[in-house]
Amino acid sequence: MVYLHNNEKNLIIQSITNKPTNVTFQQHKVTRVERSAILGRHKGYRGCTLWFTGLSGAGKTTISFALEKALIQLGIPCYSLDGDNVRHGLCKNLGFEKEDRSENIRRVAEVSKLFADMGVITLASFISPFKSDRENAQLYKKARAGELLGFTGIDNKYEAPQKPDLVLNAGTETEAESIQRVFQFLHEKGILPESALHHFYGQSVRELFVMDEHERFSIVEKTQDAPEIELTLVDLQWLQVLAEGWSSPLHGFMRERQYLQCLHHGQIVDLKKKYYMGEGESCEESETSSLMESPINQSVPIVLPINNEQKAKLYINNIEKEQPSLVSNVRLVYNGKLVAVVSHPEVFPHRKQERVCRQFACNDPRHPGVKLIMESGDWCLGGDLHVLERVIYNDGLDEYRKTPMELRKIFADAGCDAVFAFQLRNPIHNGHALLMRETREQLLKRYKNPMLLLHPLGGWTKDDDVPLPVRIAQHKAVMEEGILDPKWTVLAIFPSPMCYAGPTEVQWHARARLAAGINAYIVGRDPAGIQDPETGDFLYDPTHGAKVLSMAPGLSNLEIVPFRVAAYDKKIGRMTFFDERRKEDFIFISGTKMREFARHGVQPPDGFMAPKAWNVLANYYEKMGMDNRVKK
Amino acid sequence: MVYLHNNEKNLIIQSITNKPTNVTFQQHKVTRVERSAILGRHKGYRGCTLWFTGLSGAGKTTISFALEKALIQLGIPCYSLDGDNVRHGLCKNLGFEKEDRSENIRRVAEVSKLFADMGVITLASFISPFKSDRENAQLYKKARAGELLGFTGIDNKYEAPQKPDLVLNAGTETEAESIQRVFQFLHEKGILPESALHHFYGQSVRELFVMDEHERFSIVEKTQDAPEIELTLVDLQWLQVLAEGWSSPLHGFMRERQYLQCLHHGQIVDLKKKYYMGEGESCEESETSSLMESPINQSVPIVLPINNEQKAKLYINNIEKEQPSLVSNVRLVYNGKLVAVVSHPEVFPHRKQERVCRQFACNDPRHPGVKLIMESGDWCLGGDLHVLERVIYNDGLDEYRKTPMELRKIFADAGCDAVFAFQLRNPIHNGHALLMRETREQLLKRYKNPMLLLHPLGGWTKDDDVPLPVRIAQHKAVMEEGILDPKWTVLAIFPSPMCYAGPTEVQWHARARLAAGINAYIVGRDPAGIQDPETGDFLYDPTHGAKVLSMAPGLSNLEIVPFRVAAYDKKIGRMTFFDERRKEDFIFISGTKMREFARHGVQPPDGFMAPKAWNVLANYYEKMGMDNRVKK
Repeated sequence: MVYLHNNEKNLIIQSITNKPTNVTFQQHKVTRVERSAILGRHKGYRGCTLWFTGLSGAGKTTISFALEKALIQLGIPCYSLDGDNVRHGLCKNLGFEKEDRSENIRRVAEVSKLFADMGVITLASFISPFKSDRENAQLYKKARAGELLGFTGIDNKYEAPQKPDLVLNAGTETEAESIQRVFQFLHEKGILPESALHHFYGQSVRELFVMDEHERFSIVEKTQDAPEIELTLVDLQWLQVLAEGWSSPLHGFMRERQYLQCLHHGQIVDLKKKYYMGEGESCEESETSSLMESPINQSVPIVLPINNEQKAKLYINNIEKEQPSLVSNVRLVYNGKLVAVVSHPEVFPHRKQERVCRQFACNDPRHPGVKLIMESGDWCLGGDLHVLERVIYNDGLDEYRKTPMELRKIFADAGCDAVFAFQLRNPIHNGHALLMRETREQLLKRYKNPMLLLHPLGGWTKDDDVPLPVRIAQHKAVMEEGILDPKWTVLAIFPSPMCYAGPTEVQWHARARLAAGINAYIVGRDPAGIQDPETGDFLYDPTHGAKVLSMAPGLSNLEIVPFRVAAYDKKIGRMTFFDERRKEDFIFISGTKMREFARHGVQPPDGFMAPKAWNVLANYYEKMGMDNRVKK
Repeated sequence: MVYLHNNEKNLIIQSITNKPTNVTFQQHKVTRVERSAILGRHKGYRGCTLWFTGLSGAGKTTISFALEKALIQLGIPCYSLDGDNVRHGLCKNLGFEKEDRSENIRRVAEVSKLFADMGVITLASFISPFKSDRENAQLYKKARAGELLGFTGIDNKYEAPQKPDLVLNAGTETEAESIQRVFQFLHEKGILPESALHHFYGQSVRELFVMDEHERFSIVEKTQDAPEIELTLVDLQWLQVLAEGWSSPLHGFMRERQYLQCLHHGQIVDLKKKYYMGEGESCEESETSSLMESPINQSVPIVLPINNEQKAKLYINNIEKEQPSLVSNVRLVYNGKLVAVVSHPEVFPHRKQERVCRQFACNDPRHPGVKLIMESGDWCLGGDLHVLERVIYNDGLDEYRKTPMELRKIFADAGCDAVFAFQLRNPIHNGHALLMRETREQLLKRYKNPMLLLHPLGGWTKDDDVPLPVRIAQHKAVMEEGILDPKWTVLAIFPSPMCYAGPTEVQWHARARLAAGINAYIVGRDPAGIQDPETGDFLYDPTHGAKVLSMAPGLSNLEIVPFRVAAYDKKIGRMTFFDERRKEDFIFISGTKMREFARHGVQPPDGFMAPKAWNVLANYYEKMGMDNRVKK
């Protein structure tokens, strides 16, 4: 049994202040708070000591080192003070007599105090005096056999603490469970911020579903009289993105504060509801709920546009006030069905001209993404979103619509240690497949089982893009033909609509997949690009996507795999990476050319695409051709 | 004399690695590098121990605590281990016998190792054994008087280190000088990054002037045959901004990398020259020169546009290569005079449509800032800028053109402990002055001598703005009439051109003044705003400036003072802060109305503006009216 008990001198909440304790007789010129402001990713002093005690072999060092790693991953400075290490340094002049053991512990406690004063969480695992000689299993065996006397935990009395703060049981708990319990304990003591806790528990995914049936019932009941807003299909798709946690940690459709953060800096800096500027406006929101560990990349706004008529429904006349006031809850409805409720709503100007300029660097209404926005409402409805049930479409593809948490489970169950994502909204040819296979080979040098998240975009696309069902059928055919190995490929649908916002949007495409636990992202050539409606040229510099992605704040933990151009190599009769030095050997088959082939029933060169996958495409274009002729 | 000598076990460069030392017999699951990645504002392991030794009273504790503060301010984790504190804790069971003194030092050295392993710079000031009893001056006096024997440094032999790494002399150096020398030493040992050093020395201002006459001569000589680019006046103004360090840490006109960082995220993330993507492209640039402590807000691009013809001059035919190659240096010329040289030049597409959309959220060529850019060249010339001499205009106003370093000196010499800045491009009325005075009152609650940087913009403005010389004369009159007290007001010219980019530009206006050492920035109403050329309405939401500024990444150390609207209070006959509850008492005199008054010789109400200052304006508009009549 492992006891974890705190060093009272340090773990009491009072010590988490700026007051000099007896450690600092000489008053430093820097306060604890000042020093802690630069330590780790979370502001605030959180120095303390966790004292692990328990019999030898109970797992003190194991849990202490695992906890150290988990805390560092969260951006919280900590240090494991291990008995063995101390025995070789600070306490090497001590023996194992009772007095020396006490002195050993006393010194460690004093060192822990210094570390805690510095702002570090110190993990001290000691007590079993002979652990420093654990390597000498023989010695320990002798003690077990009763040959040596006075060994703690064997025949010397081990005094288990009377009131430990936490009892961990390495025998019945997994390491992860033990860590979770310590984290919960640290959170209750005010040492771990909620955001850090959330990051660990939820793997940084914030779902917005109302999971509890009673709560769902109560929300429906309470909002009986709330005004209703009818969602468009694109609104519903964004709602799904929010609900499933692709845009964590957003609580719902953006408020103006987050909208401005997104438009101006391409990231979410905090989740506060208001601005709190000027006099008398103090911030009411608790730090833990609205402050974030670090800014999160969010280049594309996720807002709910409403028109004047819809806006008018959200205000009620109030006898006490001159102006009508905003309702407390808004119901969101799709096709007549209640989908979600927005609480603490906020209405703010959409400012569409400004938005499209900042988001698309283009305000030409012939741009399909710009057009969609310019035709939407002049106001936005922000607020906290409570989604009543999973969004499904009953189009035969729902099984491919996996949430980030579901994908994480799939990868975890498969024993996968690295995930690389490929975003696409086009059919896969063998050049794409080559790049994915090559990426896996590269990752295999560093990981045991890297897996591919083959992640076609499933939301709104412009009219001349290949429809989702055709693309899914084509992707399945590619896997069935073994071009991509189903053993390391997971095919799933990314619910987001397209924007066609080039380097701005590629950041969203990469960042959203972080929720599904990816480590690497393959960036496309001209990602999320589109033709300039005026000139017909690339609207965005095709190289900017990868460039911006590689520098984007909030994505530094994501490995960006640059696109490598593959072309049809006439010499060997298959797709290979383009080689400038023998460029005459290559044929480039663009998306346009590919569609032309398919439309006119022309077979592309062997090895360009898996034949079964090609047939899916050819059939689609043939059928579309027939339909068009019928229409005419 | 203070000896500073390093603890060799820790300060040797080899220890700054990830290798387990004898400290860590038990291998932690986290490496030093991983742990250090979350420590402080600079990535990288820099754990080490600085061991201060010297006689009692030599200033060990003083310098150690001052150094601790300076390092923390730079974002570098460190901790002062002080003898007194340790004597009350870790070593309280030790006496002052020779053996105990050795054991005291041994323990401290071991604790320092643990701190260094954690990634912390440990400042250990010990050796003089009785310092822990320094409070007991009596005792020490006795020793001085020879009453007690065996005191280190008095009659006991003090063994000065034979080869100290650094010798500080508290008697002849100031504390700041000592700290600078320690910083330089740490930099040489690879512990302090250059950016941190630079931050401390240059107070975060990077000037781009070639200070050394020989170097200047050599640059002129070497670039005899370099192609010349003729600058426009606006180019020259931006060059001045760069040269004087307002846009620190930029090395010159932006390269594409920084241009994209600015356009997409409103900040500079690093100063690297290239992208280093794809295979074979490893980063050649040293970390210290191109990585930054933390991203710096930079919302407005600072680029040098060149046209096709100018671009053509920058390429030379190369026999060995198929394509012409870029020259190594470019001379920048204004009015036929050599102003600066660009080394390591880079030419990249300006992409003006994209730029104006992202920068202005508007691409209407009737917007004067948009127009200026749309009429400029299609390419940009980036590179490292070497400015040969100070930019002056000989317009009688050069004395007001103070560099950030000069302003810092003025404030330092005046014993100022907080600076608040007011940016303006309009005449000052008493409402503005009220706000400035009120801000000072607020700051006086926390500071002893807060001073105002009255900082009119001196670069290009649109035609109907009041010209700089008139504004300076008006501002001087305001000070002469005592509306703003010259004792706490410094009038200087900000050399930047205007953009009229609203919330994007206000960030630039605030951030640039950080170079001059400001602590607080008064944000205007509709800052950097302009009319929508289409609708005549505000182009930007007037509240967005303050909102965006309050959330902008990289400005968290700057206090944003929100604008408070003042209006003419008819009841008391002067400008006061507007009070909603008695709004009928107020008259609003807009800039347009003010100009109308001045143009038609109408006197504004008493107390609206200092009379002398009003006359400056009235005379200007009268003269302009006469000139216009003459022209007609």
